[in-house]
This record gives sequence, C-alpha cells and structure tokens, in this order.
Amino acid sequence: MAKKRVYFFGGGKAEGKAGMKNLLGGKGANLAEMANLGIPVPAGFTITTEVCTEYYENKGRLPKELESEVKKALEKTEKIMKKKFGDPKNPLLMSVRSGARMSMPGMMETVLNVGLCSKTIPGLVAKTNNERFVYDSYRRLIMMYADVVMEKAAGIEPKEGEGVRHQLEHAMDAMKKAKGVKLDTELNAEDLKKLCVEFKKIVKTVIGKDFPDEPYEQLWGGVKAVFQSWNGKRAIAYRKIEGIPEEWGTAVNVQAMVFGNLGDTSATGVAFTRNPATGEDAFYGEWLVNAQGEDVVAGTRTPSPLNKATKTDDNQDMLSLEEAWPKVYKRLHDIRNKLEKHYRDMQDIEFTIEDGELFMLQTRTGKRTGTAAVRMAVEMAESKRIDVPTAIMRVKPEQLDELLHPMLDPQVEKGAKVLAKGLPAGPGGGVGQVVFTADDAAAWKKDGKKVILVRAETSPEDVHGMHAAEAILTAKGGMTSHAALVARGWGKCCIVGCAALHIDARNRVVEVNGHVLREGDWISMNGSAGKVYEGALPVLPADPDRNPWYKRLMAWADKTRQINVRTNAERPEDAAQAVAFGAEGIGLARTEHMFFEPERIIHVREMILAETPEARRAAVMKLLPYQKKDFLGIFKAMEGKPVTVRLLDPPLHEFVGDLNDAQIAELSQRTNVPVDKIKARIKQLHELNPMLGHRGCRLGIAYPEITEMQARAILEAAAELTKKGVKILPEIMVPLVGSKKELAHQKAIIKAIGDDVEKKSGVKLRHMIGTMIEVPRAALTADLIAEEAEFFSFGTNDLTQMGFGFSRDDIGGFLPIYLENSILPEDPFEVLDQEGIGQLVAMAVAKGRATRPKLKCGICGEHGGEPSSVKFCHRVGLDYVSCSPFRVPIARFAAAQAALESPRKAAKKGKKK
Amino acid sequence: MAKKRVYFFGGGKAEGKAGMKNLLGGKGANLAEMANLGIPVPAGFTITTEVCTEYYENKGRLPKELESEVKKALEKTEKIMKKKFGDPKNPLLMSVRSGARMSMPGMMETVLNVGLCSKTIPGLVAKTNNERFVYDSYRRLIMMYADVVMEKAAGIEPKEGEGVRHQLEHAMDAMKKAKGVKLDTELNAEDLKKLCVEFKKIVKTVIGKDFPDEPYEQLWGGVKAVFQSWNGKRAIAYRKIEGIPEEWGTAVNVQAMVFGNLGDTSATGVAFTRNPATGEDAFYGEWLVNAQGEDVVAGTRTPSPLNKATKTDDNQDMLSLEEAWPKVYKRLHDIRNKLEKHYRDMQDIEFTIEDGELFMLQTRTGKRTGTAAVRMAVEMAESKRIDVPTAIMRVKPEQLDELLHPMLDPQVEKGAKVLAKGLPAGPGGGVGQVVFTADDAAAWKKDGKKVILVRAETSPEDVHGMHAAEAILTAKGGMTSHAALVARGWGKCCIVGCAALHIDARNRVVEVNGHVLREGDWISMNGSAGKVYEGALPVLPADPDRNPWYKRLMAWADKTRQINVRTNAERPEDAAQAVAFGAEGIGLARTEHMFFEPERIIHVREMILAETPEARRAAVMKLLPYQKKDFLGIFKAMEGKPVTVRLLDPPLHEFVGDLNDAQIAELSQRTNVPVDKIKARIKQLHELNPMLGHRGCRLGIAYPEITEMQARAILEAAAELTKKGVKILPEIMVPLVGSKKELAHQKAIIKAIGDDVEKKSGVKLRHMIGTMIEVPRAALTADLIAEEAEFFSFGTNDLTQMGFGFSRDDIGGFLPIYLENSILPEDPFEVLDQEGIGQLVAMAVAKGRATRPKLKCGICGEHGGEPSSVKFCHRVGLDYVSCSPFRVPIARFAAAQAALESPRKAAKKGKKK
Repeated sequence: MAKKRVYFFGGGKAEGKAGMKNLLGGKGANLAEMANLGIPVPAGFTITTEVCTEYYENKGRLPKELESEVKKALEKTEKIMKKKFGDPKNPLLMSVRSGARMSMPGMMETVLNVGLCSKTIPGLVAKTNNERFVYDSYRRLIMMYADVVMEKAAGIEPKEGEGVRHQLEHAMDAMKKAKGVKLDTELNAEDLKKLCVEFKKIVKTVIGKDFPDEPYEQLWGGVKAVFQSWNGKRAIAYRKIEGIPEEWGTAVNVQAMVFGNLGDTSATGVAFTRNPATGEDAFYGEWLVNAQGEDVVAGTRTPSPLNKATKTDDNQDMLSLEEAWPKVYKRLHDIRNKLEKHYRDMQDIEFTIEDGELFMLQTRTGKRTGTAAVRMAVEMAESKRIDVPTAIMRVKPEQLDELLHPMLDPQVEKGAKVLAKGLPAGPGGGVGQVVFTADDAAAWKKDGKKVILVRAETSPEDVHGMHAAEAILTAKGGMTSHAALVARGWGKCCIVGCAALHIDARNRVVEVNGHVLREGDWISMNGSAGKVYEGALPVLPADPDRNPWYKRLMAWADKTRQINVRTNAERPEDAAQAVAFGAEGIGLARTEHMFFEPERIIHVREMILAETPEARRAAVMKLLPYQKKDFLGIFKAMEGKPVTVRLLDPPLHEFVGDLNDAQIAELSQRTNVPVDKIKARIKQLHELNPMLGHRGCRLGIAYPEITEMQARAILEAAAELTKKGVKILPEIMVPLVGSKKELAHQKAIIKAIGDDVEKKSGVKLRHMIGTMIEVPRAALTADLIAEEAEFFSFGTNDLTQMGFGFSRDDIGGFLPIYLENSILPEDPFEVLDQEGIGQLVAMAVAKGRATRPKLKCGICGEHGGEPSSVKFCHRVGLDYVSCSPFRVPIARFAAAQAALESPRKAAKKGKKK
Repeated sequence: MAKKRVYFFGGGKAEGKAGMKNLLGGKGANLAEMANLGIPVPAGFTITTEVCTEYYENKGRLPKELESEVKKALEKTEKIMKKKFGDPKNPLLMSVRSGARMSMPGMMETVLNVGLCSKTIPGLVAKTNNERFVYDSYRRLIMMYADVVMEKAAGIEPKEGEGVRHQLEHAMDAMKKAKGVKLDTELNAEDLKKLCVEFKKIVKTVIGKDFPDEPYEQLWGGVKAVFQSWNGKRAIAYRKIEGIPEEWGTAVNVQAMVFGNLGDTSATGVAFTRNPATGEDAFYGEWLVNAQGEDVVAGTRTPSPLNKATKTDDNQDMLSLEEAWPKVYKRLHDIRNKLEKHYRDMQDIEFTIEDGELFMLQTRTGKRTGTAAVRMAVEMAESKRIDVPTAIMRVKPEQLDELLHPMLDPQVEKGAKVLAKGLPAGPGGGVGQVVFTADDAAAWKKDGKKVILVRAETSPEDVHGMHAAEAILTAKGGMTSHAALVARGWGKCCIVGCAALHIDARNRVVEVNGHVLREGDWISMNGSAGKVYEGALPVLPADPDRNPWYKRLMAWADKTRQINVRTNAERPEDAAQAVAFGAEGIGLARTEHMFFEPERIIHVREMILAETPEARRAAVMKLLPYQKKDFLGIFKAMEGKPVTVRLLDPPLHEFVGDLNDAQIAELSQRTNVPVDKIKARIKQLHELNPMLGHRGCRLGIAYPEITEMQARAILEAAAELTKKGVKILPEIMVPLVGSKKELAHQKAIIKAIGDDVEKKSGVKLRHMIGTMIEVPRAALTADLIAEEAEFFSFGTNDLTQMGFGFSRDDIGGFLPIYLENSILPEDPFEVLDQEGIGQLVAMAVAKGRATRPKLKCGICGEHGGEPSSVKFCHRVGLDYVSCSPFRVPIARFAAAQAALESPRKAAKKGKKK
C-alpha cells in the first residue's frame, strides 16, 4: 500500500483519530477525533510528520506524491464547506498551522487567510458584504506570510527590530498616526485597502519578490514554512531543553477558515467543561460577539459570561450566550457533554460562531487549580466516569500543596506587581510587617502583630523569631539553607536567596529593586512561587480537612500506597501536627535542635570547653535530664508509632562559632575557663570544610560520653513510658557512618547503656540501632554495614552534597548558571538525582538486604516529601519516606501514584496496615 | 589413623617440616626443618595448634591422649640429648615456648629451665661443677614460672607493679642492696641459693601455693600456660589489630635447654647469612663467650665480631669466633651456607655453643635495609639461587625510598634524641638551620646556607622559600596538605602536623616539648619516619644511579610491569627529573600552580575582580602568553610522551583570600577597582565548604573565557612545536566533572578553539579531551561521561574526600582517634581505600569501557605512588599511574610486582613498549 501522507477531517468523520498523535501531531489528532465524534469542526486535513522527515531528507523538497493527495483533500474540504479554494465568487480561505507530537507553544509558525488574492477578494467582499473585514484579513495575511514564509525562504536574517514584519507594522502605525487614531479597528475599509497596496510594495522592496497572488502558491509556501520552522533556532533550542528528538518532525494542519467577526450573527468564545478554579461540575466560559479568538485573549474588549452559571457580581448584567442565542448555546452545551464523556476529563475548548453556525476549533485537557483538580477527580470517580486509580493519577501531588497552606488570593495576586523573586523555600502565602531581627519578630508577635522576618540568612539562634513570624525572607541561601529547612518543617511561607534584597539591618531598612522598605512596612509573599509583593494582599485560608473531596481522595490514596510515610520532627507539637496530617511515625528527630535552648546551650559549651574526659562527662551529664524530657514528650506524642532519633550530628564549632566578645566573657564567668582558652578552643574547632569535618559519629567516637548521655536519655525515657504501659518503638540512629567499624563502635556503647537501663529499671526494652546512609562510602559498603545496622535511613541531603561534591551552602555561586545552561535539570537538593545519587540509594538497599534480608530502609532527607523522589523511593524498595509535617499528605499521595505506576508484589510490601 | 598431637625433632631428623606452619606454628616448623637438614638443634617436640583448639573446646583441659605422646617424644629427646628429664644425676632441662602460625612477638609466654627441682639440682651442680649457674637458672625458673603459670592459674589479676614477679624482683634488689652490689652477676652461688629459698616463700605467700618441685608438674603447667596465653588480653588485642583469627591457636614447643653460659668453652651468638646493612654476600655476626642469648641482646657486655669480615675499626682487636675456635666457626659457616641454599634467602640465626658443642636455636628470614634488600635480590638472582620474579617480589617497593633520597645516617640517628614527631610527609633526611619565613629561606639559601623552613602551615605564596629549603617542617596539616603535596612533588624532606611545635614567627622562635629553637639553630629531620632531632646529624647522600644492583633490578621491573608510570609535574625541570627517574609521561600538570608567580597573579586578580565578561576576557587574555610559554616548556621536556594538562581547578578565593589591607590597597591601585569593591568581592567568593564549592569545571562553565584561554595556550603551544617537528601528545583534562553535560559544555569550547588554532596555524593537531574522575557521581555515571571523555584520570584525593566525607584539611581532628581505635586501617589519603573508594574506581573503569572500550584510564591522585594502591590500579585495569617524580621508581617497581601477582592477559596490556 502506498504511503498515506494526508489525513482528511470534516463533515462528521475523519481519516485520523486521537490515537495517531505521532503521525498527525497533537492538534491534528484531536481535530480528527472531534470530527469523528460528529462535532462540527471546520473541515481540513493534516499532512503527516513523516512528510516533514521526507522534506528534510530531500533537502527541503516536498515529495511529489503530496500534491495530488493535498488536492484531493482540498476538494473534500470545499465540498463540505461549500466554498472553493481560489474561487472568484465563493472563495474558501485556509489556515496553515504546525502541530507536533508534543505541544511546543509559540515555537513554530502559523499562516491564516491563505487563498486571499486579487482574484478572490471581490467575491469575498460581495459574499460577506463587508469590505473592511476582507481587507483587514488581507493585510493580516500579507504580514504573516511576508514574515513567516517569504523572508525566511529568502534566507534573510534581519537584525532585531528590522525584519519585514516590523517595517509593515511601522507603516500601519504611520497610517494610524496620520489619521489620528489609536486602534487598528479604527481604520476603515478604504484605509486598509490602501495599506494593503503599501504593504505589498514594502514586501517587494525588502525581500525583492512580489507577494504571491496565487492561492496555491500561498498554500505551498505556508506548508513549507511550517516544516522549515521545525528546524528554526527557537524550536531547536526548545527541543534541546525538553529533550524532544529531532526525528519526530511536525505535522501541518490545513483547515478551512471560519470567522467570528463577520457581523452581529458571528461570535467567538472559550470555555471549560467544568469550573477550572473550584472544580464544580458546571459549564464555564466567555464569549464575544463579532470578534476573533485573539480578541478574547488580548483583553481589549471585555467578554460576556457564557451562561448563568458563569455570571458573577461584576458581569451579571451582560448578556450570556445562553440568553442571547439559546439554540446555539444548547448545541454547544451538548458538545460539552459529549466531549467530557468522550475524553473523561475536563476540556478547555475554543469555538467560533460564523453567521449563526457553530464550529469547534479546539479541545484539549484543561488546566485547573489544585482545589479543582481534587474535586473533579473525586466527582468523576464517584460518578463512575473514571475509576479510582485514574482519579489518583489525575491530581499532581504538588497540587495538594495549595490545599495545605494559606495562599495569596490568586485573583488579586495576578494583578499585583512583583517586587522581587527568590527561591520558593516554604510554601503558601504570607502577609505581614517587615522586621529585621528575631527578637523583634518575637516581640511584635507578642503585641498581636503579624510580621515577616527579613534577614541576610538565618541561624539556629533565630529560631524563636522565625517561629513567631508569618513568613521568612532571606537574601542568601538555597533550598536547603537553614531558613528553608526550618520553614518547611513548620509548613511556613519562606523565600530564600532573594538576591535583590540589600538589607541594612542596623538602620532597619531594606532596598529592593529601587524600592525602600522600612521596619513595619507591609509586604506579601507567595512562598510556592518565590514572589514578594509590596503591601498586604488578601489571603485565602488553608483548610484541607473541611474539603470533603480532599478527604475522600486521600483515603483512596492511603488504601493504594505500599510504603509508609513518616515525618521529620523533634518538637512534640510538630509531631502531633504531622500525625494530624497522616504521619505514621518519626523518621528523623534531630537531637541537636534541642541543644540550642538557652538553659541547655551553656552546658553544651561547657562540654566543648572541657579539657578532660571527666570534665566533659560532667558537663554532658547535665544535659541528660533535658534530653530525657525531650524524648518523653516525643515518644508520648507518637505512642505506638516508630520514632527514629538521630544522635548529635553537627560539628561542635556550630555551638560556639558565633559567640561575640561579650558572650565569650559571660561564658568565661559561668564556666571558669579563661577567655583566651575559650578563644583558642573556638579557633581550634574551626574547620575549612566543616561539612566534611569532625561531625556525625566522628563526634561520638571522639567523645563517647556524648553518645552515652544520648543513649541513656532515649532508653531511660523508653523504660519509664514502657513501665506506664505506653507502647513505644525507638530507633536509635548513628549519623554519618562510612564504615562498619564506626557503627560497631557506637553500637557497643549504646548496647552497654541499654543493658544498664534494663537492669536498673527492670524493663525489657524494644529498640533498634541503625544508621543514616549519607556518606557515599556507606552506600558502597552497605553489605558490611548491614552486619551491624538494624535499619538504614537515607540522608539524601548529604549524599547529594558528597556525591556531587556540592556544598549546599555554596551552591548559589553556580547553580543558577547550571540550571540556565540545562547542565542540571533541577536543583538536586530539591529533586533527588535518580541518575547518579539514586544509584547509591539503590545499591545500598540491595547490598544491605543481601546481608540482612529484612533490613528496614527509609529516607529522611528533604527529598522524602518531593513527589518524583517519593516515587523513586517506592521503586527501589524503601519501607518508608519521611518528610516535614506539611509535606506528609503530598508524600502519601505520591506514594499512592507510585504504587499504581509500578506496583510491588505483595511480598515486598513495606507498609504495615 | 589417630590424630597426631606431638611432632618430634632432633638428631638430624624431624616428624614435621617447614610447610606445616599451620599445624606446628612458625617456630616449630622451622625447628623441624633445620633438624631435617641435619643441622644440630637441641632436640624436642612441638604440641600442635589443634591441641590448643581442643584445650579451649574442653574448657581448659588437655586431651588425655596427649600425655603418652608427650612422654614418648620426651624419651626420644632424652636419648638424643643423653640426659634424662627429672633424673637426679644427669637431668635434662627443657624450655616451653609458644609458637603461632604468624609471629606475635612478646604476646605469649615462655618458661625456661623446666625440670629443675630439689631432686635434680644436686646432679646438675655435680655435672656442671658450677653451683652459681645452677642456682641462677633455678631462680630464673621460679620467677618465670610463678609469673607465667602460677599467678595466672590462680586467677589473680594484680594491679600494675604488684604482681608476684615484681615482688620477686624486689627481693632480689633488696639482696643486691644489702650486699652493696649493682649487677645480678655480682651475686654469688650462696646468695642465689638463699634467694631461691626466699623466692619460694614469697610465692607461697602471694599465690597461696607451693612452688612445684616435680618436673612433670612444671612441664604440664608450662604447656597449659602457653595455651592459656593465647587468650590473654594482650594476645587478643594484638590479634584484633592484625586480623589473626582466634581459631588458629598456638603450638607449644618443648625443647632441650642448652647453655652458652656454662664456662669458657661455652658461648652464644647471633648472625646474618649476609650483611643486612649493605647486602654484601659475607657472613656477618657477633658472639659472646660464657653468655646466654639475652646477654647479647641486653647490651651489658660488648659482643665480639664473628669473623674477619665483620670486624670494624672499633672492634678489630677483639677475638673473633673464626680466630678463637676455627673448627666451630667452620661448622657454623657450613650451616650458614646450607641454610641460605635451603631457604634461598638471607637468614637471621641464633646459636649456642655448650661446652664446645654447636646448637642452632633459631633461623628466620632476616630483616635488612632497602639497599641490602636490592643487592641481595639481584645477586641471588644472578647466581641463579632465585629467579627474577622472586627477586622482584623480595624487595618491598617502600624500601627503594631509601635509595632515592639522602638520609640521616641510621647508625647516628639510632642514638639521637627525638625532639618531636609529626607526619612523614616528604621522604629522606634533611639538615639545616631554622628559618621562619619563605623570604628568609630564599635569602639564606642565596648566602650559601642550608635552611629548614618552619611554619604553622604553608600556602602557595611560600613556594619559593620551600624550594630553597633543605626540608620543611609544619605544625599543622595532614599528609595531603599544601606543604606535603609540594614537598613530595620535589622529593623533599618534609614533616607536617607536628603539633608539638609552638611557633612564634614574629619573634623567630619555636618552642617544642620544652626546648626552644631560635632562627639559625640547626635541626635534623627524618622525613620518612616523621622525626625531628636537635643539631646537625650526618647525612648519607642518595645516588640510585650509581647503585648497579638498583639499576639491574629496575630494568627487570620495567620488563615485567604491564602499566605505564607517569609523573605529576608542571615545571619543566621537575618533568626532566621525573624522566630521569623513568617517567613515561605527565599524568597531571596543574595549571593553577603557574598562576601564583608575582607577574601573573596580578592578572588573575584582575580577572577575578572583573565585572563584565568583556573585562574578564581582557584580563584572562593577559595570561595567555605566560601559559603558552609554560606549555612550550613542558611539551618540549616531554617530547614524544603524553602530557595531561588539567584546566584551572581551585576556587577563585584562593587567589585573593589571603590579601592583607596593604596588598588590597596596592591591588586597587593597579586595577583601578575601589578597595571596598575588592573587599566585597573577596567576601562574596568566601565559601563555607570550598572543597565542595565553586571550583573545577564549575569555574570554566561560569567563566568560559578561562577555559578558552587555557585551551588556546595549550593548543597554540602544540601547534608551534608540531610545526617544528617536535612530537607532542597533549591530553586536556577537565576537572571535577560530575555529569556528562558539564564535560560536553567544556569540550565544545575546547574543540572550537582547536578548530580555530588549526585554521590559523595550518597544523593538524593531535590531542585528546578527557576528564578527572574525582566526584563520586562521575564514577556512578561513568558510562554516560565516557560518551564525551576520551580518557579518565582518577583524582583519588578528592574521590576519597567526597567518598568518605573527609576534608583532608580537617581530618586531623579525628584521624588519630580513628587509627588508634583501628576504625581505619590507615590514613585513606595515603593508602587508597580499596574496600570503599576502590569500588568507585573499578566501577568507573568498567562503566567507562562499556561505553568506550579503548578508554584510556589512569590515576593522578597521591595514591599513584603508593605501592598497594599501584597494585590495585593494575588489577582494576588502569593503563597508567602518575605520581610525584621521586615516587616514580617506587611506582614502576610496585607495578612490576602487581604484574607478577596478578598478570593481565596480553590483550589487556596497558603498557606501550
């Protein structure tokens, strides 16, 4: 059978269908599908992507067989449209559009009104009785065609602002000026007629060729221009970024023109089959009489509501299509039902009414808010339009974010002016008055004010102020900076790395892109988008639990997923919040956060300054009652659920490095250590690369008393609660292990303490001892480490730092350049790098389970709440992911999608029901 | 057949042999072997290691079958020695010694003179006519037996200094004091007799048991004590460190006592079958008349030379055994020949002459200097005693070090007092006057003085002074600190991390362990051992090329090895030195070292301060002529050999971070950049973890002009030399690549420059573009990176830093603790961690070659000159190793051993002949 190069559609049927996207492109396949459904689309045909390939293989020549096929399809089109291409009396005009397999918006070319020429203009004028319309269409054709087809075919590469299109626009502007008018629409038929003459002269001068006056010449020129645009600079760059193969090629859609601007019986409109903002099952749209599609989009005229359901307070007096032309509306409404039933999803449609006749120009899956996505998915599943797995797959996990945090009112935000942009470190909206210190934040909050803490960067000593603030804004830092980590932990709005901020904290003023903000000024932040606004924008509250569709969707997700979801939390109130969000345990309780409270840090510093093991032990043991209290609180909050406690991790310098002279003097007084000695010790603890320095288990090995104290605090708390009948499951995690012997060393200490606590309390303790896998060498030798470890928890933050050799504190120096040049697809601290770092995770799971088949494996890095990373964790066989409390629902949901995408065999299920 | 538990030896034959070390232990097997050779050893028998296992399985009871076997063996011994165990008239005394499979020096127990008791003493006195000797032997038996057997069997664990042995020594001291004598030998027979009575009283009081007066009781007590000592605390700790399995157990050797202290016809001695210092084929040893072995070792009497060959200026008047007792000497000399012929290696032997009769007590492979090892191996091979592979395997690669560097005279060093210890960072010996600044070092050197540069640490700005100094000594830093790297590159003596130094550079004085050294004071250093001495010790010059044996051995090694050896060098003179040492190319030329020279660094700083790409390009291009000159020099020096040039690697902060205010002011003047801006830029470049920061190819991606300039300098130099007919093979290496796209980005720049240089010069360039594999992610994704890379060079320093998460600058905080606790077997920056980091190397080679089968792979980290690491590189299939010039011979030699240990198939040979 000969190769078919042209697929016709129209008159209630089509040669193509929705499944043929590779051959017909997305647009062509959908037009065919609509035609097959009996939906009125202007007739036309699609030239396949294979012809594009032929075109390039033949060095820019079209296969000769194409001509007859196109002619045949054009004849069918003429028949259905009851017009003739190039006919002087009843001319058919065509559009020529690109249409690749994947949408490449704005990357390729379009030519409209093909077929208008000196031969056909009079007939169209006679037929439409609208000379202005015809010459306006003609000048549009000349403009587009000269630019898209002729200039490119002539090989001219104009400098910016000097192309033929610009010169034509210039001529048009000159005419408007001469006539003293502002809008294109104010030019009358006579003006446009003159303009067309002038346009053709300019074309001749600039390009050196006459504007083609032959319909078929225009048609073939348009087709070639579309194919040619597949290899345009912009398209190549776009394909490179999106990873679209060059071989795919584009199809060309040639379709009869229909006009919504033929007069008062014509119109155009766009609509959604359901409300894209709320998800409500109601037809929703806008229309404009005597207008073209671009007029709706351009916003020069305010469109009317499509129907009663779409009316608002603002537009209730405008005439809806439903009221104006009820029969046409009824047809449109039927099509809406047909499309939704057929596509089983909300559609975004475009239509044109030409002289009372309805044509559908496009249908595609409609964009929607997170709230709407949830409601639509649930309602469609409950009405059996889709099944539950489809409903789950239809909501993007990130979309849930919108339901979990208060957000700036998107309607208002759309119109607000962005003051600065930064990294979206903590989600949701935040509005408050600017303050510059943590203490001020706390004090203002006490006075009942809402504040936003603005800092160059934050440190653990700012935590009270960060907690008090509505939102946090920093000039430095990346997605895993201190501010970002803390804010995400609380689900608090936060923007970091906002380089435009020039903060003068002493004078309580910040200059940002020419604006000056003083203490007390109001700003608003969208932490999900990284945008800062001046003034106080309205905020919509978050309330997922009052959203019935959300609750139903999450219940389905929980039944579906096969891994557990825990949370990273160390404060009992955070733990409780996480449980409310569905957390099934704590995957990471960082004990060092507990050391920063004023009454404790003095003992930490005493410990650091101790000169003998005995003195160090004495200082460390003063922390025991505090730590024990911490663990009693957490264990109680998480009763019956596992709690992973990580032993002290940061280098000791962090506890003393920021002390100023006054603080050192005070410390000297309290500890009886001379100032000089304190300074010498601080200097000694300073490291060139603290990330790779004396931290993690290296601390517990050098100073075993720290491990002893922490193990005792955990296990005594465990014993005390066990005695009271509280069921607790502590998992003691040794950080930064790189070799089996490190873990063995620490495990021996913990076991000895455990034996002692059991003996003294008479309670048999249930606990596990395991390690974080966060050093590449730990992953490489996981088979050996698993001989000692009862569980692995992947610390993918550090694994990313060490695997890439990227300091997360310093990555700001080059990450933007890397993202710009597509050297990295994303910030690897946000989205787990599956290609590289993921190998370490997969390897460690496999090696660890080869040694210890039932080894419990989880992740506690920041990636544990990022959907694509959660799915990866499911695939490599982890038992759980752990993330900050506000990410828990997203992780639960992503895990459900992962289970649908690549279900585990029942035997491998990690999740305990 | 019943299990044999006891193996007899003596009288010219033995039941065991040398190959039975697992069963008989090392000592037992060697005694049997000597007996079989007809060499006179005191007769005796070995109780097998299996009995040790039985002993522990039976909870400390010996198998009952043992008794009859021991009795039979003892009877044979009696027959040969013509004495009887426990016989009142002619008593046989026995020694009981441990003997494990591997030597565990000093870890287990020995009891001598077993069989002396009230029943046998009179007979021995009568027979030897030497009452003093007999009672001296008896008091020794009591002392050893009470300590080794009785106290332990009684389960007494005395505090330090309170054990029975100490109490006995105390009693002996009291008697000497009472008699007013100092030496044990000044006590006469009567004294010793009294002492024995007192000793037995003390034993009874302390242990609560009588000292056994029955020979067999003594014998079994000794045997059990030896077995028991296998699980003594010291032995267990030693086994843990050395990785000796507990199951091995120890054998027990029971052997007839012979005495060199029976009178003037008795003697004892030690000897080496060849000279252990020079390797000369001459019998070499010492002897003492009327003495026991321990007298030779203790050094209380000066031993006489064994023969004429052993005589020196100091002892030429002393009577040699050769002169005194020529017949005995002849027998000994025959035995020497027999042993060397049999063992095919130099032996370390002990002998005793009892009343004119020669007994051999021990033979074992003798320790030797590096110089001697080389000469012995070559001469033995040339005399066909061993084959060439055996000769190569017999020299430890590290032993060559001694030949490659001047060294402190070991004889003098032995007696010198160590002032301080540090890390042995650069090998050989160095003697000079202390200076505290690089400028002083250079100035003093100009005045013809020899100086040692003493610094807290060094930086690139000290390089001229380091070069001028004989040796470098720093208080801080590790084995891969700046000082260590630079010094090793030059083969210069260097000690780093010498924490005892308290340097006051301003006052030009350093305090070290209580001593004060001022500028100009002489010190001496052994950089191979990390020891510092006060004063100027004599130095032996290095001159490997005048050592004919070294040259022959290295020629064999070069024929044997299958991989190439290159050097790390960037200065033409270093490159030439390396070629003289046998380097076959440059594996790493670091271009940043070239940036630090005063006339260049100003342009580097200009580049760093530039605010626009244009200004940056202008500054960078000023460096082009310098860089080109550098490459012309290196390429010429390495004509015909490959040269790998690494593009700029360190973070830019390194070039400006150390500037003081005056220097900043000067820089401001020269660059017209305001001081404030310079300071702000320096602050901006500061990173929290520079090791994981903006460096390596991240620089070339952010500032492509740097890569352009460097590529142009390399390729223009290449073109210029190619035109002149100089054959050059440049390999351009992009550092710190972690993903394929990074390399692709830089490769595109280099290729474009290459095309331009080819066009302008008309020369077709031969060059390769590859990358360093030094980031773990690069190893993980090596299959992808090899799509772009034409070669891999492993940067195992950084791979170790990132794989372990160890900053080499900060490891000093915990590495000593790790080594002490055996958590790490060695400093992983010295010896490649094959278990972990090695996996990354092996993985990258395999993945890289899966993509590009002929991918050239090498190593350029510090490990490339460390023997065990070189062997690993051979095994995983690298084509070459690269190391500092002075390590090249060692690497060549280690590579030869690797080829013998695990030969590659011919097809996989990396080495180009």
